Amino acid sequence: MTLDPLPETDLTRHRRLRDQGSLDRADLHAILDAGFVCHLGVVVEGRPLVVPTVYGRDEGQLYLHGSVASRSLAGGTPVCVTVTHVDGLVLARSVFEHGVNYRSAMIHGEARKVTDPEERLEGLRRLTEHAAPGQWSYARSPNRKELAATTLLALSLEEASVKIRTGAPDDGDGPDAELGLWAGVLPLASVWGAPVADPLLPPETPVPAHISRRGGTRHG
Amino acid sequence: MTLDPLPETDLTRHRRLRDQGSLDRADLHAILDAGFVCHLGVVVEGRPLVVPTVYGRDEGQLYLHGSVASRSLAGGTPVCVTVTHVDGLVLARSVFEHGVNYRSAMIHGEARKVTDPEERLEGLRRLTEHAAPGQWSYARSPNRKELAATTLLALSLEEASVKIRTGAPDDGDGPDAELGLWAGVLPLASVWGAPVADPLLPPETPVPAHISRRGGTRHG
Repeated sequence: MTLDPLPETDLTRHRRLRDQGSLDRADLHAILDAGFVCHLGVVVEGRPLVVPTVYGRDEGQLYLHGSVASRSLAGGTPVCVTVTHVDGLVLARSVFEHGVNYRSAMIHGEARKVTDPEERLEGLRRLTEHAAPGQWSYARSPNRKELAATTLLALSLEEASVKIRTGAPDDGDGPDAELGLWAGVLPLASVWGAPVADPLLPPETPVPAHISRRGGTRHG
Repeated sequence: MTLDPLPETDLTRHRRLRDQGSLDRADLHAILDAGFVCHLGVVVEGRPLVVPTVYGRDEGQLYLHGSVASRSLAGGTPVCVTVTHVDGLVLARSVFEHGVNYRSAMIHGEARKVTDPEERLEGLRRLTEHAAPGQWSYARSPNRKELAATTLLALSLEEASVKIRTGAPDDGDGPDAELGLWAGVLPLASVWGAPVADPLLPPETPVPAHISRRGGTRHG
């Protein structure tokens, strides 16, 4: 499947480290799908506020769990949502060339409070399945009161900026290579552990396969 | 060592999920020391911008690597820096009680561009040693030109908000416990991999101990 490239706008155009920028919508989707916690930025009384929150998505929209930031989100309030995966430390010959291997997506737009009950349920489903695949049908569904108590935000994925850095340091063919120092990458990976049962659970309760099979697998 | 508690201000007071809030400065330091990438929020032309960047710290200040955001940071510009560690998924009996175990620090203040050459060098040293302990003395130090090309920001740690959630889901003693569903936590951990040498490196170059000994250890 080929997707339209991401549009370059005043907000998404890469001004710095342009070689790390990507306009490939598939990269955007892959970065979003590799995580479930984003950092949501809003402006409150002229000051920035950056709040971690969970998210899910469909083809064109990000769904965000409401948080302390929601109080400040009237209709049309600009937000910036950033998802970052740190893949390793880039250890160069010189301190100056040190860096990070990472994948990052930054989405700009106006967050919309989801009020339609059906969309709210569907957004919550996507959010839950994104973080914990299989839990939407396994766990008890939200009742009307719980749904009403949940703030869900939607944000278009149309205006997004993607940056990816991979591979070795950049000073391997420069004069510093003659220093004889070791250089390379120290990789960093996120790994799911074995499920830890709630101590209040009856001991015979089986761990469902959709949970147990994630243990030991890589996340991100 | 006992540290003064963090002050409660209009920006740091916990309004939501108050039981997850901490005023313990040692918790703040521990969260900062467990990571090296933060999300820096600034306001640019009325819009929020959330940029991942690397940081280090001393007792009272955070040092941040300059980035695209730096262009927008005149003196006294308010910033919000958030560091989040995701420790696991909280899988409850009901979708509504699902959540995340995490440690998060949010620092509010005015970022200052570090211009004094000595402080700039010291800040860069802390930033480098924070992410890659041992590299400051191992790798080639920044020369005058490189130092001049590096933007370093400093931010007081005085106004900070810390939130921590640990442990099992909250619905183990409620009516949903009778559903007989499995509930608990799926832990998530960040682990350093084995060092990957730059392909341009002569094969006999030894991996220094300060790098090789991190391989396989937990990060975060």
